Amino acid sequence: MKKANTKLNATIIIIGNEILSGRTQDTNVAIISNWLNELGVKLEEVRIIPDLENTIIKTVNEVRKKFKYVFTTGGIGPTHDDITAKSISKALKVNYCYHPEAYKILENYYEKGKFNKGRRKMAKMPKAASLIFNPSSAAPGFFLKNVYCLPGVPSILKSMLGGLNNRIIGGSKILSKTLSLRTVESEISIPLEKVQNKFKKLEIGSYPFFKQGRIGVSLVIRSNKLKLIKKCEKEIMIFVKKKKIKIIVNK
Amino acid sequence: MKKANTKLNATIIIIGNEILSGRTQDTNVAIISNWLNELGVKLEEVRIIPDLENTIIKTVNEVRKKFKYVFTTGGIGPTHDDITAKSISKALKVNYCYHPEAYKILENYYEKGKFNKGRRKMAKMPKAASLIFNPSSAAPGFFLKNVYCLPGVPSILKSMLGGLNNRIIGGSKILSKTLSLRTVESEISIPLEKVQNKFKKLEIGSYPFFKQGRIGVSLVIRSNKLKLIKKCEKEIMIFVKKKKIKIIVNK
Repeated sequence: MKKANTKLNATIIIIGNEILSGRTQDTNVAIISNWLNELGVKLEEVRIIPDLENTIIKTVNEVRKKFKYVFTTGGIGPTHDDITAKSISKALKVNYCYHPEAYKILENYYEKGKFNKGRRKMAKMPKAASLIFNPSSAAPGFFLKNVYCLPGVPSILKSMLGGLNNRIIGGSKILSKTLSLRTVESEISIPLEKVQNKFKKLEIGSYPFFKQGRIGVSLVIRSNKLKLIKKCEKEIMIFVKKKKIKIIVNK
Repeated sequence: MKKANTKLNATIIIIGNEILSGRTQDTNVAIISNWLNELGVKLEEVRIIPDLENTIIKTVNEVRKKFKYVFTTGGIGPTHDDITAKSISKALKVNYCYHPEAYKILENYYEKGKFNKGRRKMAKMPKAASLIFNPSSAAPGFFLKNVYCLPGVPSILKSMLGGLNNRIIGGSKILSKTLSLRTVESEISIPLEKVQNKFKKLEIGSYPFFKQGRIGVSLVIRSNKLKLIKKCEKEIMIFVKKKKIKIIVNK
């Protein structure tokens, strides 16, 4: 049981020159990651790559062996730089062709005579792929094997994730506890390390912050075991009290 | 000359569980990318990886052969989860030890008696690394071979980049031209593809947007050759005028 759980991991491939160029700020990583936390799947790596067929093929084939779930975002629209569906077909060595159901959905969505070549392209995907329905703007995503292809526009992507809840076999929800302290990292690094050494299976992160001109540190404990988180929190509170550090956030 | 230019590329490794968990929104990719555009260096890949020594070592050693410049962000603070300097030392097979200059900077920065073990850790780095000075909070970054290690806090990272301008050998500035149109992608995908095929060396991106309840498409042309961008823009304007599409932004 435990061994299987370690496999409940995922990776995201962000396909998009606009993210690499600094033009567009990615927000899809956080959207997908928070959704995966709820499903008990751990996001373990992200890659941001350009709209280049060979790069997409190579990256997909490398990561799909390493992770249980591979999500891609971007490149499934109607323009020349939308090459995700074709590239994934090549990576998975299947034909790139019209998906009958996707074709119907799009044909119904557009007014008569408006279902042009560009729009028809959005119905082309790897042969035998299953659809990920799109309640925002019709054009579906798709999945085949362990590769799930989503659009790049965050609001549309977000509206499509719910449709995948039953497809993703996850584990216990990943919980997190945050303690924000009025201190600096170097004041607590030694006792905090001792706590981390005591709880090797917990992930304890330490993040300095600046808010309204004042500094502090957020400690974040993450695990799918609530009891363990509470035990760890108790240990942290011992040195927090001893050092008379003010707790700003405890949630 | 041309061949050398193709090598002016870079990758970023974002080291941080807090980005993967969805807790923190990365903004360092855009900061570094925009700085690299000015220097004429193209960001070609980003990886976001967890605070795990083996993952850091493996990733660094993989990408430093593929890209001219490797930037890492995060993991150079005083706490137990700050393992970048140690991991990079292992990756580059050099000792992990106190850097005399970094030690002095930090010793001077803190009040007498306050330069504790946690703080001293920030002076430890790969042997023979050079410092990247930190005008915000003293603790320096460092570089060795083609690996440049920066902090995770965006404001601090930003303040340190200027100090690297003379270290990075770049090319002509990467320029970009944006045309935002009141249309949808599928209305222009065919003529746009024709333009892209005519200008194979230019990167033309097409990005749908929703602003104030109205939709549109931004076309972004990128290159370090201004003349080529202008020629391409002219070709795009031909179909834009023909289709009577309104231009919202032209910059």
